[in-house]
Parts: sequence; C-alpha cells; structure tokens
Amino acid sequence: MSLLVTGSIAFDSVKTPHGSVTDVLGGSAVYFALAAAHYAPVRLVGVVGEDFPDSFRRVLDHPNIDMAGLEVRRGSKTFRWSGSYDGDMNEARTLDVHLNVLAEDAPRVPAAFADSRFVFLANTHPALQRALLGQVKSAELSVCDTRNLWIENEHDELIKTLAMVHGVIINDEEARMLSGQVNLIRAGEALLKMGPRFAVVKKGEHGALLVTREGVAPIPAYPTREVKDPTGAGDSFAGGLLGYLASVGVVDAMTLRRAVARGAVAASFAIESFSMDRLKAVSRQELDQRTREFTGMLRIE
Amino acid sequence: MSLLVTGSIAFDSVKTPHGSVTDVLGGSAVYFALAAAHYAPVRLVGVVGEDFPDSFRRVLDHPNIDMAGLEVRRGSKTFRWSGSYDGDMNEARTLDVHLNVLAEDAPRVPAAFADSRFVFLANTHPALQRALLGQVKSAELSVCDTRNLWIENEHDELIKTLAMVHGVIINDEEARMLSGQVNLIRAGEALLKMGPRFAVVKKGEHGALLVTREGVAPIPAYPTREVKDPTGAGDSFAGGLLGYLASVGVVDAMTLRRAVARGAVAASFAIESFSMDRLKAVSRQELDQRTREFTGMLRIE
Repeated sequence: MSLLVTGSIAFDSVKTPHGSVTDVLGGSAVYFALAAAHYAPVRLVGVVGEDFPDSFRRVLDHPNIDMAGLEVRRGSKTFRWSGSYDGDMNEARTLDVHLNVLAEDAPRVPAAFADSRFVFLANTHPALQRALLGQVKSAELSVCDTRNLWIENEHDELIKTLAMVHGVIINDEEARMLSGQVNLIRAGEALLKMGPRFAVVKKGEHGALLVTREGVAPIPAYPTREVKDPTGAGDSFAGGLLGYLASVGVVDAMTLRRAVARGAVAASFAIESFSMDRLKAVSRQELDQRTREFTGMLRIE
Repeated sequence: MSLLVTGSIAFDSVKTPHGSVTDVLGGSAVYFALAAAHYAPVRLVGVVGEDFPDSFRRVLDHPNIDMAGLEVRRGSKTFRWSGSYDGDMNEARTLDVHLNVLAEDAPRVPAAFADSRFVFLANTHPALQRALLGQVKSAELSVCDTRNLWIENEHDELIKTLAMVHGVIINDEEARMLSGQVNLIRAGEALLKMGPRFAVVKKGEHGALLVTREGVAPIPAYPTREVKDPTGAGDSFAGGLLGYLASVGVVDAMTLRRAVARGAVAASFAIESFSMDRLKAVSRQELDQRTREFTGMLRIE
C-alpha cells in the first residue's frame, strides 16, 4: 500500500561520544523513508535548496522510494541542523539551526501522489500538516508527529490537526505537555480524545507506550550495546512502524503492537551509525531476524 | 521453599503530590516480606528499637511470615526515614535519616532459619550482607541489592559480596556506577563477571532489564494510572520476584522472566497506597489476574 511521507531533508552535523560528522544527510523525511522502504513503497514529499548534492540523492535512490515529490528550489538553501549528545545520549543538544528553505513556501504534493493511502506528517507547523494532508484525498490512515514548539505556540492549530489524523506518534515529554497529564497512560488517553484512534508515546531508550481504545501495551526499545548516534531514531521508528502497517494493510491492536516492534528494530539499526549508513545498508532479512529475536526477548510464558 | 530476607524496618514519613504520612511502617525487609509472602513462606531477620509499636507488628502478622528473626532491642530506637517525591515521582528526595538501631550491631539469623534455601540481602553494608549470608549454610539461591553509598565507599567489600551471591537486583544508576558502563546491557554483563548468574537492572517506571548468560530480556513496568507513593517499589519488586521463584523452586531464564513480571505486579500494587496498605490487602487472586493482564499486554504475535 502506498505510503506518503512529508518532512524535513537536512544537512546534519552531529557530535556524540563516538565521533562527529559534518554536513551529512539527515532530516525526518529521509530517516522515515529509508526505514519504511524496507517494507512498502514510499513517496517522499520535501523541499531542498540548490546546494543539495547528488551524493545525497543517491542515498535515497531505492526501488521503493519515489522521489517525484522532491522539490529542488533554485536560489534556496537546504535546512541545516547541528547538535550534540552527551552521557547516556538520551537527548540532543541543538547547537545551531538554519531553517533556510523550510522557512519558505511548503512543497506541494504531486498529483500522482494524491492517491496515497497511508500518510505520515513528520514534525512541522500543524497548519502546514493539514494543508499537506488536504492534498491527499484518498488517505485512509494519516499519522502525525509534533514538537513542543507547536504545542506551546500553535496549540489551536495543532488541535485542529489532531482532529483530522488517525494516529499520533509523539515523544513522552510532548505527550505530557499537550495533554497536561504527567502519567503517560492518561496522557495517551487524552490524546485519543483529541481525535486519533491510536497514540504511540515514544520514550527513547525506554521504548514506547501504545495506547488504543482497546487498552495500552508497553513495548521496550530493542536493547542494543552500540549507540553511535541517536539522531533520527524517532523518525526511523515511525518509518518502520508505518512501513510495516502499509505492507500488511491492517490497523488493529495486535498489528499495531507488531508494527511498534518493527519501529523499535528500525530505530535500533539507525542508531548504529551516523547518518543513513546502517539504515540504508540493512537487509530485510536482517530486519526480520532482529524482529524475531526482539519479540522472542519479550515472550513470557 | 523457604525464603529468608534481611533488611531494614523503618518508621517512614513521606510526602508525595497525593498526600503525606508521618511515622508509618516502612523498610526494605517489610516491603519485601509482604510482597513475597503472597507466594512463599518468608523468614524475616531485622532489628528494631523498643519504640516499635504493636500496630506495626500486626501488619507483619501473616501466615506466611515467620517473625522469629525480629529482634526488639531494649534501649534502642527504630530506623527512621523521611522523604518526598515531586513531579513524575521517579526519585525520592531524602529529607532526614536517623539510622538509630541500624548503626548498632546487626541482628543475628536464628538457628531455626539456617536451613533457608533462598536468601535476599536488602541494601546494607556489604560486609554485613556477607556476615548474614554466612549464617545461612544451606542457601541455594542468594540475591543482593546495594546502593551508591557502598559502591563509592566500600567498593572492595561489595566486590567480595558479589562474588558470593547468585543474583543481584539493582537500580540502573547503581549498575552503571558499579560497572563503569553507561550502556545497561554492558553494565549487566559486567555484573555477571563479578559473580552473579543473573542481574536484574531496575529502571523504575521504565521497567527492568534481566541479564543472564543466555541473553537479555527487557521487561516494562506494569503501566499504572495511579501512583500514590513510590516508596518501597523496588523492594516489593524484589519480593514478588523472589517470592515467585521460591514458590516454583526453579531458576532458569524463562522462569526469571516470569518472576520479573511478578515483581513488576507486586510493585504496581505497592505504589497504589502509602505504606503497606495495598500490598498487604491485595489477594493472590488479584496478583494472578494482574499478572495475566500484564503478560497479555506484552504479547506480540
């Protein structure tokens, strides 16, 4: 089933205890697309500047990724983000941001993408998320992410967006801020009252809490010995989750659990390297194998 | 199978966002014993002062708890702890501590308890843990907890204790400090190299990581809407875990997973009230039912 993603495409500069990289490929839509493409055909909608190099485009060159929605805007520059991680690497410290082309007009969804059935709206202004979703008339399942910036400054717009989507994938702190509930079950349930049928509350290395009308399911992160760079973990998680859902075309409570496990596994590969190296190189066979290993770890009988 | 516990017995004064209590029954050995007694016969070894009230003794009056190891020391005062929890209540702020009788001679293990098969050594000086364990000649499974104080100030003593026990149940920050490893899998594996066959690394509301020579298993906390007072959660967890193990008498990797789930469920009841109210009142049927509900949540098929 076709899965459309719209989000950022970036030059990232990242420093972690394991090294640093400068001006590598990053961005929510890129991490999402490369994770999801292991499972389903992905249509990417995003905008970059004319500084976007061919080498980055080649990373996205994948039989399952349709790049017809990539706009290269003349006279503009690509979004840039720079950050560092310390200690247990649970949180990025943003050192520098240049919105560049992301501060200009949004990209348009190509007419050929209007029949997409699944849509992921990565973090951006909630009104823009709605405008993009409005261009995909046949969306059967739409899911959004958001950030504290919009919760604080564009609360009413965000509420309107949440009323339109079927699911939300969101960090724990944002779930708390948006719902006014410290307890994450209550926070997730409050999110469902705003519209979505399911909420996935991400807790970084502590996993995620899946909240549906049928109940809650706590799902740990895949336990990994090697975290080189946590950048993109959340978007890879969303990509593995929605890519898997799009591949099976069913969205019931147990399928959602399986999808969250797929998301956890995608994230576990993403953080094993800087940028897209591991996420791009991993095979479907490796993903399946780690998923079996992971669900085996969770088995209690 | 008989399960001996030695640890603190306390007057607790606690303040949380949900209320406050003064001079209620607390202490690691008490939380542990009341959680474990739902599953197996418990032998409690501890010392209190002559201020220890009959009402507290009645709380411990349980068909599965043998109090022959409770020493009431004339002229001494019972240990007192006072603390508060704020915000997400993940960490206690200690406001006041009076060691009182805990700063004096340790209690002795009664001769009738020397044939105990399972032993839990709650947090105390590691040399004292060894001295107590040495009095239980027939111990088949011994498990200890510890705290940052001993890791920092009695490191060599603690290493000697770890070399003697079969298992360790420890908080994430203490596992990191003791092993010098930030990554919790590596930390757990480093603990196994110090002697124990298994390590349970507790992560508070984020659950626990079980590390054995067969591999790791991440097990979430039971997701609960209502946390009134987190005091004793870790000791109730250990009590449910070891009580269950003692009840089945088997310590393989899958039984340990089931035991961790039992620990999570015991902790989830303990935190629903101040002091021992809920942990004491809960029935075995309720424990079994919540365990089924919990393992059902973790099922991914």
